[in-house]
Amino acid sequence: MKLNLMLSFAFLTTCYAVFGQEKQKVATGEKGITKVSVMYPYAEGKTFDIEYYESKHMPMVAKFLGSNLIKYTIEKGIASGIPNQPLPFMAIGTFYVNSLSDYQAAIAPNRDAIRADFSNYTNISPIILVSEVVK
Amino acid sequence: MKLNLMLSFAFLTTCYAVFGQEKQKVATGEKGITKVSVMYPYAEGKTFDIEYYESKHMPMVAKFLGSNLIKYTIEKGIASGIPNQPLPFMAIGTFYVNSLSDYQAAIAPNRDAIRADFSNYTNISPIILVSEVVK
Repeated sequence: MKLNLMLSFAFLTTCYAVFGQEKQKVATGEKGITKVSVMYPYAEGKTFDIEYYESKHMPMVAKFLGSNLIKYTIEKGIASGIPNQPLPFMAIGTFYVNSLSDYQAAIAPNRDAIRADFSNYTNISPIILVSEVVK
Repeated sequence: MKLNLMLSFAFLTTCYAVFGQEKQKVATGEKGITKVSVMYPYAEGKTFDIEYYESKHMPMVAKFLGSNLIKYTIEKGIASGIPNQPLPFMAIGTFYVNSLSDYQAAIAPNRDAIRADFSNYTNISPIILVSEVVK
């Protein structure tokens, strides 16, 4: 009897722990969140090492952002969605943050380190879009 | 004893049900999923009615995509992340789909209806990026 009560409690605790964790993750798609998208335009002669970007560059920047960072995503450009048009972007890295000013304050003292790492994975000058999640 | 066993089972079932549901939602950020991003570049004289886009245009396209559509997002461009640079995009609408060929097959017969709706919310010709979620 006591064991079963303990088991029940253990299940319930696990349940809430799992639920709580997942809920935090799905909050990233919610209205009002700020996105900072670093977009690498494609052009002839441009290169992009997505393995280095994923394993070294993005984790470094993510570390600078601390708890302001909700999550970050990486996407690899495949094609233009319009026939006979060139690929618009080779890759996009996106930071979902709670506060844009905290993002800027965290990046400012680390800008040189971030820029110095660019040549390790690309020869592209990125475009950066700050946007707000509407839906 | 029997009641506690039943309670344990009930908790476990609830736990898995909740976990399963949340997992499906967060799957949208998972590796390998295809994104189709419709990007509206900013330029002087360009306009974009995001309310119409959110309430009419995107739901119409989403309906054409059916069960292939995992989710769609809308973001509103705020600024360039690089000082003294113009806003790169006024808005981006993104479809997360299971299959690119199913997406193309669903859009093809509805292309005219989609294009005819453009003038109701914008005078911008979009760029379309097909990409793969890496992380």
